[in-house]
Amino acid sequence: MRYATVTAEGEQLWGILRDDGFVALSPDYPAWKTLRNVIEAGALKEIAQAAQGRAITQAPDSFSFDIPVPDPGKIICVGVNFPDRNAEYKDGQDAPPNPSLFIRFPQSFVGHGQPLIRPPETPQLDYEGEIAIVIGKGGRRIPQAAAYDHIAALTLCNEGTLRDWVRHAKFNVTQGKNWDRSGAMGPGLVPFTHPAQLDDVRLTTHVNGELRQDDRTSRMIFPIRRQIEYISTFTTLVPGDIIVTGTPTGAGARFDPPRFLKPGDQIRVRADGIGELMNTVKDEA
Amino acid sequence: MRYATVTAEGEQLWGILRDDGFVALSPDYPAWKTLRNVIEAGALKEIAQAAQGRAITQAPDSFSFDIPVPDPGKIICVGVNFPDRNAEYKDGQDAPPNPSLFIRFPQSFVGHGQPLIRPPETPQLDYEGEIAIVIGKGGRRIPQAAAYDHIAALTLCNEGTLRDWVRHAKFNVTQGKNWDRSGAMGPGLVPFTHPAQLDDVRLTTHVNGELRQDDRTSRMIFPIRRQIEYISTFTTLVPGDIIVTGTPTGAGARFDPPRFLKPGDQIRVRADGIGELMNTVKDEA
Repeated sequence: MRYATVTAEGEQLWGILRDDGFVALSPDYPAWKTLRNVIEAGALKEIAQAAQGRAITQAPDSFSFDIPVPDPGKIICVGVNFPDRNAEYKDGQDAPPNPSLFIRFPQSFVGHGQPLIRPPETPQLDYEGEIAIVIGKGGRRIPQAAAYDHIAALTLCNEGTLRDWVRHAKFNVTQGKNWDRSGAMGPGLVPFTHPAQLDDVRLTTHVNGELRQDDRTSRMIFPIRRQIEYISTFTTLVPGDIIVTGTPTGAGARFDPPRFLKPGDQIRVRADGIGELMNTVKDEA
Repeated sequence: MRYATVTAEGEQLWGILRDDGFVALSPDYPAWKTLRNVIEAGALKEIAQAAQGRAITQAPDSFSFDIPVPDPGKIICVGVNFPDRNAEYKDGQDAPPNPSLFIRFPQSFVGHGQPLIRPPETPQLDYEGEIAIVIGKGGRRIPQAAAYDHIAALTLCNEGTLRDWVRHAKFNVTQGKNWDRSGAMGPGLVPFTHPAQLDDVRLTTHVNGELRQDDRTSRMIFPIRRQIEYISTFTTLVPGDIIVTGTPTGAGARFDPPRFLKPGDQIRVRADGIGELMNTVKDEA
């Protein structure tokens, strides 16, 4: 079962994604404008049941994907979270005691199947395949043992980055991580119901069919339970908040010479049980 | 004329702040849920006119202040933006070519008159007095010459920081800048109608009556026009977005020994023509 947000004939809809197409449910639930509202209402199961036996409302190829939660309160990203990623920085520093965190705006992401936009200001558009979690139950100072109870759903993220802009200033990666339409999220939301969906999952990124990133969630420096505990120490998490949990080694910047994305490239981020997020690249018009 | 968002008898209202109290206008404009919607509609002048000749709806002390725009799409903060602030870091690095940017969530701020919350995890709560601008007209790649045309209003910010958490991880200050209720914004919005309101304005911060920060906007390393140009290079600004423009030297962390905030302290951030933002400090319950 996958939930998705799509646009068809200029209208944004949420509903259920099936092999034979899309079942729009949002027209039946006008009080829930987005999947964030469905998650806030704890109603993912309810709408899945409502979709049973229904005919599709949109045939495949008659709609485009938006990011699954178009209006999250927060998108918090975890940096430098796989072995060798810290070593990639070659600054002689030990692995840090706490996760590096930065924030992205929803407008920095496009949906599945949409092109990432390479701006005229820099050719250094890079990919980062990641798993993203969507908070279902809010909380503050959530202990690790309870952390998974706060996750409603999973999705995939290509945490696209303008690499030179990450190091533009004295501190912080904000500007390299927030170019409009430079990353992607989706295709849809997979309900999270069992720890095995996260504990030891293979995560890969292919560019034009070539394997570039390949690691397992069990090797994260800061496991997802720890991320939820740490982040909720300082900020109250609420339903619909998203944590993007970190990327394996192998981004284009780490090759010598670097292998940045070019127009026409096709990037596939894949994780067992979550699906595949595919995007192309195009130059800004 | 100042616009404000307040809570009275459990209800959030927006309207006009006057010397004799508050004139709630939100009940007359149900389509505009917050001042963000008023700004999106370009209607700040219209509602000011609507308030003329009206009696107050809330007497002073019968309401509490919320942050003026409770639901901004983005709050982007500029770091290290006054002379000597770069030198304060004592890392031997030259002044950077571009502004350092980080993002705060609205929930990290309280309104005028509310206590900043010192959490049990760290005693290093620190103040940073700043001027914040509210975008009125959206845009991308806004040239400096046109930048001021995009500002709807001004307010003040105490960009409260948990100092040790700023350096918790390898990169980024996110976690030290986003503790719930650790900073403040307000009291209200002052319409921006003339460059003189921003070009050379004195900005001060007092703690318990003692002057701690004192500088002028004319001395910013990255002037506000440049901030708008730079930020809008990578992200489309929209009405209601907020840029917090940087703090002068003199935060508590820079004293030897450091002078962090303690329960009962009173912090006043003041700027000519914008007003005064006052907050106290209390330990988290």
